[in-house]
Amino acid sequence: MPEHLDNLRVVLVAARNPLNIGAAARAMSNFGVERLRVVNPYEVAFREARSAVGASGLLAKAEQYETVAEAVADCRLVVGTTAAGHRELLHRLQPLDEGGRAIQRQLKTGPVALLFGSERYGLSNQELSYCHWAMRIPTREEHGSMNLGQAVAVCLYELVRGRKKALSKKLLAKTSTGKSKSGKKEKISAASGDVERMTQLLFSVLGASGYVHPRIAAGTEEKLRRLVRRMNLNVNDTVMWLGMLRQMAWKLGVKDEDRE
Amino acid sequence: MPEHLDNLRVVLVAARNPLNIGAAARAMSNFGVERLRVVNPYEVAFREARSAVGASGLLAKAEQYETVAEAVADCRLVVGTTAAGHRELLHRLQPLDEGGRAIQRQLKTGPVALLFGSERYGLSNQELSYCHWAMRIPTREEHGSMNLGQAVAVCLYELVRGRKKALSKKLLAKTSTGKSKSGKKEKISAASGDVERMTQLLFSVLGASGYVHPRIAAGTEEKLRRLVRRMNLNVNDTVMWLGMLRQMAWKLGVKDEDRE
Repeated sequence: MPEHLDNLRVVLVAARNPLNIGAAARAMSNFGVERLRVVNPYEVAFREARSAVGASGLLAKAEQYETVAEAVADCRLVVGTTAAGHRELLHRLQPLDEGGRAIQRQLKTGPVALLFGSERYGLSNQELSYCHWAMRIPTREEHGSMNLGQAVAVCLYELVRGRKKALSKKLLAKTSTGKSKSGKKEKISAASGDVERMTQLLFSVLGASGYVHPRIAAGTEEKLRRLVRRMNLNVNDTVMWLGMLRQMAWKLGVKDEDRE
Repeated sequence: MPEHLDNLRVVLVAARNPLNIGAAARAMSNFGVERLRVVNPYEVAFREARSAVGASGLLAKAEQYETVAEAVADCRLVVGTTAAGHRELLHRLQPLDEGGRAIQRQLKTGPVALLFGSERYGLSNQELSYCHWAMRIPTREEHGSMNLGQAVAVCLYELVRGRKKALSKKLLAKTSTGKSKSGKKEKISAASGDVERMTQLLFSVLGASGYVHPRIAAGTEEKLRRLVRRMNLNVNDTVMWLGMLRQMAWKLGVKDEDRE
């Protein structure tokens, strides 16, 4: 798990749909956030979400509170999420990316609560009053209200986004080292000699096909040379192209000295 | 709607759950992306999603296709999304933020397809073979697989996130002089339909040359498809390649129906 992310508490306030509670938990698990708190959930929904097939251990360990005040009592920063536009917002509003950076800084020093309101009404002004500030996902004004599970996914993505740069680079490296030789070769540009060999073979094959008009042969050859260079061929691809073109040349009866 | 976002096509491949199709559509509406395409969906699910309460006009206008090839035919860039880790990935993999920037650039010049696989299996290697590259959301290795609607939400958020900055850069760029038409075409990527046409022609020519072993023909075709996508063909180059391959096909006696 990325550093400090264990300081994050995702707080669902008055969630009513078990599928949404489950979806929020799944997004948390995807992005490595483990601490879920629910405030005054619709009781049946919470029970259903917990017993759903595939529900994570994260849901089983979710902590339940009666009020927002109790749910955020141990947190040093409390941030609400909102679709805004719906009511006179009394809070300082941050765009998600800037807010995300502020949260990341705070996570290094202590617990942070990230609040999500009910599917229908979002966070009330009363609930927002426990927040230091609110954060807005950049949805359209005409259709601002997001699905709860999706809102959680987007906010958590924003929080891990900068963080995992090292990790994703590592993953990328893995895919290339995993393939060992061939993977490395994919990044190595082909030697100019091979690229020229491919150009000549292509020219011969086209000649045997009747594509090259003798009078403008030199111009065609130049055009081909540029075309082949624009392909930015790597070592592997060049080997494949040479193999294909040799086979065509053989089939078209290109004479040996022209074949390579 | 943010500029250029109308060039984006969200393509759901073999989606099976109506709630997920609906959730994907809702996230699209939230972030101002209107064009939904579904490939070979579980028929009942698609019908249910369409008739669900609150289903957007976006779902009603969704276009249905039988194959990935048809669904992306008019797109100049095709990007797959993947949880990776599950299989030997044969594609270039970009982290979501970097991939997002590349998509934003391409959206200015023409249609881009963003593919999401089925809930259970993601995109198959065959389906991915139509993609120029793949993009990975930075989920944990231990639990990488995201809910479909949440994956769509996160990817679209990434695409709208930095837009304001991109816009001001564009304003600066505007002061530089414009280029001639042919110069422009050199920068415009070829439409997927043409790139696929070239792939098929090359496959036919190779078949007629005795390069394709019948027993592994499908694998060879996939390999070719990836090879041709890696060429990053522009409009002019594709025209030239199609002309060359048609001439070879004619000379090698490829039957008419296989020629195009």
